[in-house]
Amino acid sequence: MEEIVQGVLEGDRRCIARAITLIENEIPEARQIISLLYPRTGRAHVVGVTGPGGCGKSTLVEKLVRELRRQGKTVGVVAVDPTSPFTGGAFLGDRIRMQEHSTDEGVFIRSMATRNSPGGLARATKDAVHVLDAASKDVVVVETVGAGQSEVEIVKVADTVVVVLAPGLGDEIQAIKAGLMEIGDVFVVNKADRENADKAVVDIRAMFETNSGEQVWKPPIIKTIAISGEGVGELLKRIEEHRGFLEGGVFASKRRERVEVELLEALIQKISKVVLGDLKQKGELDEILEKVVAREMDPYSAAEKVLAQKLRKIGRS
Amino acid sequence: MEEIVQGVLEGDRRCIARAITLIENEIPEARQIISLLYPRTGRAHVVGVTGPGGCGKSTLVEKLVRELRRQGKTVGVVAVDPTSPFTGGAFLGDRIRMQEHSTDEGVFIRSMATRNSPGGLARATKDAVHVLDAASKDVVVVETVGAGQSEVEIVKVADTVVVVLAPGLGDEIQAIKAGLMEIGDVFVVNKADRENADKAVVDIRAMFETNSGEQVWKPPIIKTIAISGEGVGELLKRIEEHRGFLEGGVFASKRRERVEVELLEALIQKISKVVLGDLKQKGELDEILEKVVAREMDPYSAAEKVLAQKLRKIGRS
Repeated sequence: MEEIVQGVLEGDRRCIARAITLIENEIPEARQIISLLYPRTGRAHVVGVTGPGGCGKSTLVEKLVRELRRQGKTVGVVAVDPTSPFTGGAFLGDRIRMQEHSTDEGVFIRSMATRNSPGGLARATKDAVHVLDAASKDVVVVETVGAGQSEVEIVKVADTVVVVLAPGLGDEIQAIKAGLMEIGDVFVVNKADRENADKAVVDIRAMFETNSGEQVWKPPIIKTIAISGEGVGELLKRIEEHRGFLEGGVFASKRRERVEVELLEALIQKISKVVLGDLKQKGELDEILEKVVAREMDPYSAAEKVLAQKLRKIGRS
Repeated sequence: MEEIVQGVLEGDRRCIARAITLIENEIPEARQIISLLYPRTGRAHVVGVTGPGGCGKSTLVEKLVRELRRQGKTVGVVAVDPTSPFTGGAFLGDRIRMQEHSTDEGVFIRSMATRNSPGGLARATKDAVHVLDAASKDVVVVETVGAGQSEVEIVKVADTVVVVLAPGLGDEIQAIKAGLMEIGDVFVVNKADRENADKAVVDIRAMFETNSGEQVWKPPIIKTIAISGEGVGELLKRIEEHRGFLEGGVFASKRRERVEVELLEALIQKISKVVLGDLKQKGELDEILEKVVAREMDPYSAAEKVLAQKLRKIGRS
């Protein structure tokens, strides 16, 4: 265990990989690893990259990694695949191109997947970011495929959120844009060599104008052609500007909020485990379950009833 | 409150709509409504319809509703839109076609959306199904757009899961198929007039052959052309066959599992609310949060520490 932790702190690839695998498989020892690494976290710039499928996120992330390496920065990438509950694995196609970094000790790339609890993927992703942060990566990129409720949760780990769109991806994009607006710090219109790229920029800008006002950071809109690398340098500059903006003000409070969410999640997980474990052991859970199965009682009332005594005790503590 | 409950039990549209709105907005009274309706649930056949975007699910559901009405059955539809955290609303385009049912008391159609907690949508959907079930709908269809972790959660409320695919929707479909296989009871290749429809059927069948074995129910694969209604009667027959199959054996145990999940969710929600409320009130949460923010302690260890005393009390009860 301590060997792994030491290895992670030294940036050893095999130890980083091992630590993330333990986290992904929800092995109890993973907690211990996080506990030991945590004091060494908080230094990396965590950048989330999200957007609908087909917008070219993976290619863009690859080019970002290259650019960061050119500047001498170390990089970690956590690619989250929401289709994983199905496949039990992650799309590898796009990742293969990233193998050129496989001999570069300054880059660590990992696709996350989990077949376990809902919420498990989000938790594992956060912990994987902690590992790469503790491993002294200057920048940790969290790439989420698609755009849904769980992906929004995941991208909340980031200091800076990059929303990637592409011109002409259809009406669906129009529909989700409104919400992506809320979470994006930097916007990218990728595949900018396509028709309607300028129209996409105008559309995005129009959305800001309706709900700006007291905004301090005005999210820039960058055009890129990920496949040729065009605009990637500019994108990186804007990402760094955003970090600078955060450090000039809301950085501490934003990080504090994130820590609070993590703490609340850990609390809920722990409480649930202990209380449910206790109820199961005493057979109380089975008893009340029978009543709900027989539709004598609904699940909410049943929960109230079975917990009443326990929760009174907690209230008195 | 009791007026709404009475109205729901009588199948009154306005009361059903009002009840679901209260649930969606997470109004405390919603719990009471569910509590009063619950003893009258458990009779509807809950059918989940899922599949990737662009496969024609909405049209297929519309035709299923028509066919069910022709047979004199009452129908409820709960359409779940995963993009809702963004838009705060639901796609209405496809639903407009369903307005032909708007004067038919035997049909109730509702799009769900929630801007609240993750997991809130799944919970609200389950409760909306309870409402329609209590309103004596013979069949309740839950339609989920897209395919991701949260959609799989949602579709688990169903007795029978229909997975809709379409030929030539691209590689992504290939990748998710493997997982859709696991949850599907009936498979549909929609847009069967397209090229490669037969190939799609063969592909799906091939997947079963690799992981069949002790399977009792062999999921049928139906070709449909939703837009013309072709194959919809056949699809409905298979859905009913599946219900018959369930009733001949695993129906009770499957429903029991579902009730257990609902009860556990209700328990976790209740415990979390009370314990976190108590910690906040006593200022203990702020105290430990400071330590985590300062990275003196990781979230998991902090959770253990702050809960240690409380959980010992629970253990003694």
